[in-house]
Amino acid sequence: MEEQTFQTMLQAKTEEIEQILRSYLPKESGYQKTVLEAMNYSVLAGGKRLRPMLMQETYRMFGGSGGIIEPFMAAIEMIHTYSLVHDDLPAMDNDEYRRGRKTTWAVYGEGMGILAGDGLLNMSFETALQAFSKGMSLEEMRRTADALKILAGKSGVYGMIGGQTADIEAEEQESSISTEQLLFIHEHKTAALMQSSMMIGAVLAGAGEKDVKAIEKCAYNIGIAFQIQDDILDVIGDSAVLGKTVGSDARKSKQTYVTMNGLEQSKADVERLSEEAVTILNSFAGEHTFLEQLILNLVHRAK
Amino acid sequence: MEEQTFQTMLQAKTEEIEQILRSYLPKESGYQKTVLEAMNYSVLAGGKRLRPMLMQETYRMFGGSGGIIEPFMAAIEMIHTYSLVHDDLPAMDNDEYRRGRKTTWAVYGEGMGILAGDGLLNMSFETALQAFSKGMSLEEMRRTADALKILAGKSGVYGMIGGQTADIEAEEQESSISTEQLLFIHEHKTAALMQSSMMIGAVLAGAGEKDVKAIEKCAYNIGIAFQIQDDILDVIGDSAVLGKTVGSDARKSKQTYVTMNGLEQSKADVERLSEEAVTILNSFAGEHTFLEQLILNLVHRAK
Repeated sequence: MEEQTFQTMLQAKTEEIEQILRSYLPKESGYQKTVLEAMNYSVLAGGKRLRPMLMQETYRMFGGSGGIIEPFMAAIEMIHTYSLVHDDLPAMDNDEYRRGRKTTWAVYGEGMGILAGDGLLNMSFETALQAFSKGMSLEEMRRTADALKILAGKSGVYGMIGGQTADIEAEEQESSISTEQLLFIHEHKTAALMQSSMMIGAVLAGAGEKDVKAIEKCAYNIGIAFQIQDDILDVIGDSAVLGKTVGSDARKSKQTYVTMNGLEQSKADVERLSEEAVTILNSFAGEHTFLEQLILNLVHRAK
Repeated sequence: MEEQTFQTMLQAKTEEIEQILRSYLPKESGYQKTVLEAMNYSVLAGGKRLRPMLMQETYRMFGGSGGIIEPFMAAIEMIHTYSLVHDDLPAMDNDEYRRGRKTTWAVYGEGMGILAGDGLLNMSFETALQAFSKGMSLEEMRRTADALKILAGKSGVYGMIGGQTADIEAEEQESSISTEQLLFIHEHKTAALMQSSMMIGAVLAGAGEKDVKAIEKCAYNIGIAFQIQDDILDVIGDSAVLGKTVGSDARKSKQTYVTMNGLEQSKADVERLSEEAVTILNSFAGEHTFLEQLILNLVHRAK
């Protein structure tokens, strides 16, 4: 696919996702108005909407059509957003700015930042549960229940929250961390929500257990490659392009995949992981030209 | 029912709930061990286990039997617990002690307090979703989905989190609050999880829409009466029994139901609300002697 065509499609798909997402956001009224404002402020801060896009593209690759995927697309973005809102809190990373915009707690106060995150996490389940409707067949009910189990599992203490915990623990630990520990953090903190997105897309489209497992592996590779590329960019990137101080992780003497394995090995691993991911995609008959390009652009991004 | 008999039954039922709850708590291992420890510490801090008890008793009153209620019992207690963990944070109520025991953040640090709360909220849905099993009929699937919708709805921004937000807003507001605003706070912050508990019990036992609505009203009355009684005890209670400084709300010039309506009117309202709740219970054919006594003890408690 030509880069020009891809960019046009990317923009159209992102706009479609924005509209879906907005349709599930709360109206800002009532005595609890402030938390609703803080939630909407957080979600509408922009972002690539990568996770809903991975979900929708995987759904389509497995022949899925219809609206049942939409509440799940909104739900996964709410979970991703709440994790950023809580990560930015003073007791966590203490970030006042994200993407050049004040973070939620910096605008609404710390207490409201906590409540907005809680509100988004809770609302992600309220939203995904809207996929259950009265006229559903037993098979549709089962798929929806399975998708919900994936959504909850990959976000929780055996998924994203587990990775966030391990990351905080690693930062406080005096001894150096192991490769296993680093991969645990990347798998859970970063890959888990990508796995959740693609697996839910597959499950809702009716993919079998074996295919869902393959998709889980594919998304694992994407997540790890994405994270290694992040570490690579931190070393070689251009500070103006990246919008953050280059080498900031290294200066804080934080161990990264690159400090542990060297730059050349890290680059080779990104290639290997993304090629494997594409090979898995190619094992499926469904149309996935855009999805493949999305993954490659993601992994090879220069910022 | 004699008080002695009630107390014996209460103890046996509480122990049963403790066992169910423990069976759904995470094992403390892996790189994310600390958050799992913090979650278990929070849940095992004790408490009356009132919400799972209301759920189980309502389920039984509507003829429910079998284990499908158990993951929901654990889930509602996890939600109640996470709300306390986040409420205690320095950015919220800044409480270092609860029930004579250090609060979660005071033991594990503020960041881990946030993550433990997130972990419990997320795990409540993971746990409740375990109620879905392969062999289920369409009707069982529907009831489980309806119960999940209630669980999510009553905990979120249109339930408990909404009440918590309105409470914080009321404290910061310069003008005096209205009765409508105070009742909004009590309904959402306190009654919503009781409604969730009793409604889920009813739905899972197969109660019809009209009966579930009646149970929602019953639990509303219990929640509001419970909260007014709290305000009454703050004025007339014995500080040694209550374990907090009597009149502390009034000294902080916080408006309560009692300061707004007077002590006599407040007492009369507690009576009226609990009588109405019992009348609703008595409209159902199912056995509810213990449930009725539980509610009356709760509303008329002296501490």
